[in-house]
Amino acid sequence: MAQDESSSGAKVQPRAREPIPPDTILIGKKPIMAYATAVMMHFQSGAKTLTVKARGRTISTAVDVVEVTRRRFFAGKLAIKEISIGTQVLGEAGDSRNVSTIEIKLEKTG
Amino acid sequence: MAQDESSSGAKVQPRAREPIPPDTILIGKKPIMAYATAVMMHFQSGAKTLTVKARGRTISTAVDVVEVTRRRFFAGKLAIKEISIGTQVLGEAGDSRNVSTIEIKLEKTG
Repeated sequence: MAQDESSSGAKVQPRAREPIPPDTILIGKKPIMAYATAVMMHFQSGAKTLTVKARGRTISTAVDVVEVTRRRFFAGKLAIKEISIGTQVLGEAGDSRNVSTIEIKLEKTG
Repeated sequence: MAQDESSSGAKVQPRAREPIPPDTILIGKKPIMAYATAVMMHFQSGAKTLTVKARGRTISTAVDVVEVTRRRFFAGKLAIKEISIGTQVLGEAGDSRNVSTIEIKLEKTG
């Protein structure tokens, strides 16, 4: 029996990822300190700005990372320039779901 | 044996809660739709502004509530005026811990 394309659901495909732009850290499931260290190293390398991005349940972690970094490592010399939230549609049509997103733009002021 | 005041730790005390200011919804562990409905009813009663607050793990839920409300119920007629994040110290000295917070200020534009 012939198979049409729409029934090839069992084929394992590599998950499509958007390229991560420079000066951006995407928060995942690692411990807060892993990301806080990455933020610190980013600014120590001379960069002046960084955007911390997260979606879904990791949004809370993103806020934790920014707050820990600002308070413990930079003591006021890291300013929050902008916070924006949004919704991203994941998956194909017919099997799509919405996930909330956050972007926190940081700027080193000291 | 005399007890001084500092050893009365076993006494059960009502948990101190800050009063919730008007035009504010504090996000907890209820389903997203419970809060989305509360936001909708708040604006339907004639109010023009509302602040959605959350702390810790419920920060993600707060973003979900705002996004669902804006997209599903208000279709662009609810603007995000300001988003701020911060840190709150919970507990007594010596047994304190930090928790991240978020405040999302909404304004009805339609």
